Amino acid sequence: MTNRILGVLGGMGPLASAQFMLRLTLLTPAETDQEHIPAVLWSDPRIPDRGRARQGGPDPLSALMAGIDGLRAAGCGAIAIPCNTAHGWYDRMAERTGLPILHIVDAAAAQLALVAPSGIIGVMGTAATLEMRLYQDRLEARGWQVITPDEREMAELVSPAILAVKSNRVAAAYAPLAEMAQRLAARGAKAVVLGCTEIPLGLQAGPSHTLGVLLIDTIDALALASIAWAKPALGIIKLESTAA
Amino acid sequence: MTNRILGVLGGMGPLASAQFMLRLTLLTPAETDQEHIPAVLWSDPRIPDRGRARQGGPDPLSALMAGIDGLRAAGCGAIAIPCNTAHGWYDRMAERTGLPILHIVDAAAAQLALVAPSGIIGVMGTAATLEMRLYQDRLEARGWQVITPDEREMAELVSPAILAVKSNRVAAAYAPLAEMAQRLAARGAKAVVLGCTEIPLGLQAGPSHTLGVLLIDTIDALALASIAWAKPALGIIKLESTAA
Repeated sequence: MTNRILGVLGGMGPLASAQFMLRLTLLTPAETDQEHIPAVLWSDPRIPDRGRARQGGPDPLSALMAGIDGLRAAGCGAIAIPCNTAHGWYDRMAERTGLPILHIVDAAAAQLALVAPSGIIGVMGTAATLEMRLYQDRLEARGWQVITPDEREMAELVSPAILAVKSNRVAAAYAPLAEMAQRLAARGAKAVVLGCTEIPLGLQAGPSHTLGVLLIDTIDALALASIAWAKPALGIIKLESTAA
Repeated sequence: MTNRILGVLGGMGPLASAQFMLRLTLLTPAETDQEHIPAVLWSDPRIPDRGRARQGGPDPLSALMAGIDGLRAAGCGAIAIPCNTAHGWYDRMAERTGLPILHIVDAAAAQLALVAPSGIIGVMGTAATLEMRLYQDRLEARGWQVITPDEREMAELVSPAILAVKSNRVAAAYAPLAEMAQRLAARGAKAVVLGCTEIPLGLQAGPSHTLGVLLIDTIDALALASIAWAKPALGIIKLESTAA
């Protein structure tokens, strides 16, 4: 039994954070309820849209901090945020809270290191995540070469698919996401990071093995990092840059 | 957008409450994140086992109340508990908190009324749920005739399947649960209530339509009742005995 309580700042979108809770449970080695990880999910879908904030919309920082403060008040010892784009506010959140925040890009990098330790890596994500270079800077600093969809591919394939998942139309999201993953593989990517937590939800609406390229699901990566934090004795993985 | 925040007292088991969050999201009519229901999930798998409490084990009431108090502090306006057995403590919880608690049996009854408004109904659940007559008393008071597995069926089929789900072995749970649902149908049940939130998780590991009997998933029923509470304008369902 662990007494470390995980705080999950979610609702961005709510399907992704629910899926995170499911994967956190399924990936935890446990025989009874009591061996699972105590967690509080703060699912606030009202948090202002992260992409729109970058285009002059309302800033999400105060809503993000309200969630982190609520999770802290509930006794949580670390924060996981199953939304890649929200990590554009990582430094400001980390600066304002004393709690460790498990960085989703570090979590993805830890999984990448196991299956594709060097070379070209494809990254799919929201336009905001790619523009903020959340993946490019952190992965290139560790020696990977990062390729991403071009502007037209974002507009025609990735962005509409992410919106489809956010409106519960997961089946409609599969084909464009599958097409994009295959294009990145054709350009040399040894693995493709699904760097928006809506993307694995769309891809799981169809067969993913047929894509013929390794996919790094950032929901799973963050769940594994969370399990490693809550149950350090398991020794599953170690994030490079996140204190715990 | 709704400003009603749903409190979900979960972790009993954690897979069931994660699935509840997923179904709450998928069943909510929404086009954007911001139209979904704000919710806080208190997933505390350390809450003492409800079945074992009835056999002299530690009582879960104080852990249940700690969760409800935490959800109240987080600003939640009603509580949903995706664990049928925990409803054996419903009266004591309701008495101690001022918040409305959406009763899972009422939620199941609201769905039953739509598809099998009278006659014989099968109910599967934990031994504790059946012994406490959580379903029998409430459904019989409304005119249904309730049949349940016998002691041997509980020991050989239902109880081991529930334990399998709690240890993440959902595939192993399918066959015994499917067998039990079919036996209840053969005895005249027009519908079978899956009155333990682990049961739908086991049954979804295989095809459920082949069972040839209507199944009432209490995770879905409680999610629908929660949506009705959070978004009363939708007019989805009305629970008979729960104030909101």
